[in-house]
Amino acid sequence: MKMDPSDEQRSASSSSHVFVHNPHLDTMKDDILYHFSLGTKTHDLPAMFGDVKFVCVGGSPWRMKSFIEYIAAELAMEDPKSDYPNICAGTDRYAMYKVGPVLSVSHGMGIPSIAIMLHELIKLLHHARCTDVTIIRIGTSGGIGLEPGTVVVTKQSVDATFLPKFEQVILGKTVVRNTDLDRSLAEELLQCSKELNQFETVIGNTMCTLDFYEGQARLDGAFCAYTEKDKQDYLNRAREAGVCNIEMESSVFAAMCKLSGLRAAVVCVTLLDRLKGDQLSSSHDVLHNYQQRPQILVGSYIKKQLKAKLQRS
Amino acid sequence: MKMDPSDEQRSASSSSHVFVHNPHLDTMKDDILYHFSLGTKTHDLPAMFGDVKFVCVGGSPWRMKSFIEYIAAELAMEDPKSDYPNICAGTDRYAMYKVGPVLSVSHGMGIPSIAIMLHELIKLLHHARCTDVTIIRIGTSGGIGLEPGTVVVTKQSVDATFLPKFEQVILGKTVVRNTDLDRSLAEELLQCSKELNQFETVIGNTMCTLDFYEGQARLDGAFCAYTEKDKQDYLNRAREAGVCNIEMESSVFAAMCKLSGLRAAVVCVTLLDRLKGDQLSSSHDVLHNYQQRPQILVGSYIKKQLKAKLQRS
Repeated sequence: MKMDPSDEQRSASSSSHVFVHNPHLDTMKDDILYHFSLGTKTHDLPAMFGDVKFVCVGGSPWRMKSFIEYIAAELAMEDPKSDYPNICAGTDRYAMYKVGPVLSVSHGMGIPSIAIMLHELIKLLHHARCTDVTIIRIGTSGGIGLEPGTVVVTKQSVDATFLPKFEQVILGKTVVRNTDLDRSLAEELLQCSKELNQFETVIGNTMCTLDFYEGQARLDGAFCAYTEKDKQDYLNRAREAGVCNIEMESSVFAAMCKLSGLRAAVVCVTLLDRLKGDQLSSSHDVLHNYQQRPQILVGSYIKKQLKAKLQRS
Repeated sequence: MKMDPSDEQRSASSSSHVFVHNPHLDTMKDDILYHFSLGTKTHDLPAMFGDVKFVCVGGSPWRMKSFIEYIAAELAMEDPKSDYPNICAGTDRYAMYKVGPVLSVSHGMGIPSIAIMLHELIKLLHHARCTDVTIIRIGTSGGIGLEPGTVVVTKQSVDATFLPKFEQVILGKTVVRNTDLDRSLAEELLQCSKELNQFETVIGNTMCTLDFYEGQARLDGAFCAYTEKDKQDYLNRAREAGVCNIEMESSVFAAMCKLSGLRAAVVCVTLLDRLKGDQLSSSHDVLHNYQQRPQILVGSYIKKQLKAKLQRS
């Protein structure tokens, strides 16, 4: 049994279209991607997904549908005759939409939920023989010392002790995986935001937790055995460690994308400043406006990339 | 800062209507249950939920809607004039349905997703001043050495090393919580299944993992660095430790319900025998039939309880 993380990481960089690292897959007659309600026997995955170059993922199925509508308009690829069908209509676990080279997939909340989705997405990209895929998580988060509405592009995803690592339990043993994201992609996204000039964007560390309440030092959960001062001390220590925002998926996202050789970024808007409160009490309209910011930034990035590619060809 | 788990557990048993353990809640003007799109200022929670006696939770929103339709028919409380509205229609994070004293709530996949839901559900029951609530998770799982379709009522929820504990990270430090479930409730459910005599039900330990693929020793994920023999060895060790099935939510469910003084059970059907395979390759109809079994069992239990209560009054 090989579980040396350095082995895992070396093998990931071999080629831009090698996503999986599992010798058992070759021995399987067919592969059922259960939580997508898709499979190699029932669907022609290369025909359906072979042209995918950008994958955007986010927690909420509604937001990922709204993203595909937004990107279709941005790329002038709207289909006036039809709504965008949910490719995973056979299940309620995840929702998936596609327009041209852009795939939009929901992942639910938390590390286990996004990990299931990523295992099946990575296998889907492998079966579809996709190449040179960029993947971006567009999400929401709590900010630390930032004006609400600020967009954070993640430099490193850190755990609840501010260390840049993800602990994957395999057969009862813990394997530590690296959570680095693509630095050049983060810089390109920051540059895009400067050109857009519509909202503040920063690059910083993102803390990824297993819980929204006690795990993020909130005072408004069902249980809380610490004081306001304990909370402030913890969040201030996070800030000193370079943490700009807190969410619940970035570490496993970074780890799995790195293992797969996928160029990856995490772009999250901050819905509130956690140093000032815990409850999401802004109006629906304000929160809705904030949530569109990662979409606008990533939409603009994808448009720019496709334009540049067109000019080169 | 008090984080002694024995303290936490002592305080939970004080009364059948004390669910929360958070002194900060009393100082808040109002409480927004963000992921339910409900709140104390915007909704009359005692009027909406004060009569709730049974809460059933499960991963899939479709299944929880189907459960409320099933229980409405069982209890002869159908409303022929209307569909069952989703009480959380303002959000796509969770779905919630209610018929009489029964609440049905989806929780997504994995510990973080169900934990967010439970924090807000426990606060909801507290704000609504509910008393004597029984909560049951009805789910799906992978079995170990059981005929597919067998229903497992959980005795203890154990982690990936087969220990009955849940590790909650609070302010970066790990607090260990107890994962015992209500023994008498488990026995009552087993008795109910005997009376129904429609499918096999057993009481046993349930392993709760943070991942569906590598975390459950599957050979069909995007990554796999272990052999079939490693997998079999791990699952056999689990079986020797009394593990009957594997799922992804029971440990935090048991821990949070125990802290809240909620009478709790986990009832999961096994969709396959993991000693024989990893892929969910049974037909849609077979899987659908299996998924109805926890609903049928819990529906019968609730009906029996309400009948007994009626006879006593």
